[in-house]
Amino acid sequence: MQVNNEHDYRTSWRKIWRYSREGIYKEDTDLLIAEFAATIYLNDRELVTLLCTPEHLEDLAIGFLAVEGLLAKPEDLELAKADYHRGQIWVCSKGAPLATEPNFLKRCLTTGCGKGTTFFDPGKIKEIAPLYQTLKIKPEQINFLLGELQQHSELFRATGGVHSSALCSSEAFIVYREDLGRHNAVDKIIGHCWRHGIDPGQYYLVTSGRISSEILLKAAKMGIEILISRSAPTSLAVSIADQLGVTVVGFARGRRFNVYSNPERLEL
Amino acid sequence: MQVNNEHDYRTSWRKIWRYSREGIYKEDTDLLIAEFAATIYLNDRELVTLLCTPEHLEDLAIGFLAVEGLLAKPEDLELAKADYHRGQIWVCSKGAPLATEPNFLKRCLTTGCGKGTTFFDPGKIKEIAPLYQTLKIKPEQINFLLGELQQHSELFRATGGVHSSALCSSEAFIVYREDLGRHNAVDKIIGHCWRHGIDPGQYYLVTSGRISSEILLKAAKMGIEILISRSAPTSLAVSIADQLGVTVVGFARGRRFNVYSNPERLEL
Repeated sequence: MQVNNEHDYRTSWRKIWRYSREGIYKEDTDLLIAEFAATIYLNDRELVTLLCTPEHLEDLAIGFLAVEGLLAKPEDLELAKADYHRGQIWVCSKGAPLATEPNFLKRCLTTGCGKGTTFFDPGKIKEIAPLYQTLKIKPEQINFLLGELQQHSELFRATGGVHSSALCSSEAFIVYREDLGRHNAVDKIIGHCWRHGIDPGQYYLVTSGRISSEILLKAAKMGIEILISRSAPTSLAVSIADQLGVTVVGFARGRRFNVYSNPERLEL
Repeated sequence: MQVNNEHDYRTSWRKIWRYSREGIYKEDTDLLIAEFAATIYLNDRELVTLLCTPEHLEDLAIGFLAVEGLLAKPEDLELAKADYHRGQIWVCSKGAPLATEPNFLKRCLTTGCGKGTTFFDPGKIKEIAPLYQTLKIKPEQINFLLGELQQHSELFRATGGVHSSALCSSEAFIVYREDLGRHNAVDKIIGHCWRHGIDPGQYYLVTSGRISSEILLKAAKMGIEILISRSAPTSLAVSIADQLGVTVVGFARGRRFNVYSNPERLEL
């Protein structure tokens, strides 16, 4: 979808007043990123409302539910349908484990940016299988992929208000997503893979945003061995990466980067 | 508190492997930002867990509860005490309106980054009084305050993993806070003002992060007329700013900025 066509729910034009470096102040227009509220219904039951960028909403819901453990396997999925006018995403699944509402809501609190506690429970981390070392990456590939991420970032260039993530091989992007929310971009990638039978574990995940414990856990659950960001990781994310065998590469900018965990996958 | 002293819960040292522009790859150390889980108890009842930077935790809890409408007025506050070892913040208030648990959790979902729906309810916005125009700001002041924000940002320079916010007069910072979470930094400022009898409405709010509807509403509830960010605002935030009379200044960098709403407060 082209940014800023008139039916594009993702953005809207706005009259603004621009003050320039030279001290000139004048009316202008600017393209702003929308905040879209999408409510996920699982088996006709309202579960959660996410603030997101309105595209790939079915993938967003499926990725979110899969990572939350509310969808067991792709074969169970019977329906995924988004209503962009009402901001609703309907998902039906044969085998959905329906948590009771307070528990579910309690879990949701842990998935938002800036809220969470269950990730500090070592038991949670033990539920995820540590990753084998099957992939390698070269410095040139890291630099190339980060360069590509910036090139792709059409909505960011237009609005400055989104994060971007991509699942990639060493040479190309497999799935690329932008979203207002760092977590949503990753969930949209997970949902796409889930629906199209793609095994994310054979690829790298590249992201513009900070690597928090939650992003790390999402990646580890998908079997992703190498997670690359242009931003900082948190100490908790790196400590979980140690336990689960994920290679965390941070501050990948220009031709520099830092490896925070499992450096054996770097091929010099 | 000095960044990186050994009792600083906010950060931790980590052995890393650094790849430089010149192709040199070697072991080094890096300071990482922590993710700290703090659970708020209001009148002995567990309410919510926030992921945050562990300092000014009492202010964080009070600001969060005040903005959520769970603390009515400063005189009601009987106790606010944080336990940094256990990650608990205890708040007791005489007049706390205790929402029933599912409702409260439902409300919480709307306050996280990337989750929310109630802000789309025009009724919610009508509960907030539109602001009078009592303040002005000059372009030089905007540039000065943004420069100061970057100067102050000690934790960001050390870790690259936090957002910063400041309540300021035209010449000086009144309260400055950094946090892993954009919302938390603002809540810590609100909590500080609430406890020290400071009227935030006579100052500007400057922030490093994106201006979402939620940050806009927090500012409007505090009576803040001018909100300045180095990042982008969302279209929803600007549309609420129109309704509530808040002046939104975005992309304030170098000597440039954009005014998105209520430009009358800009004094040329």
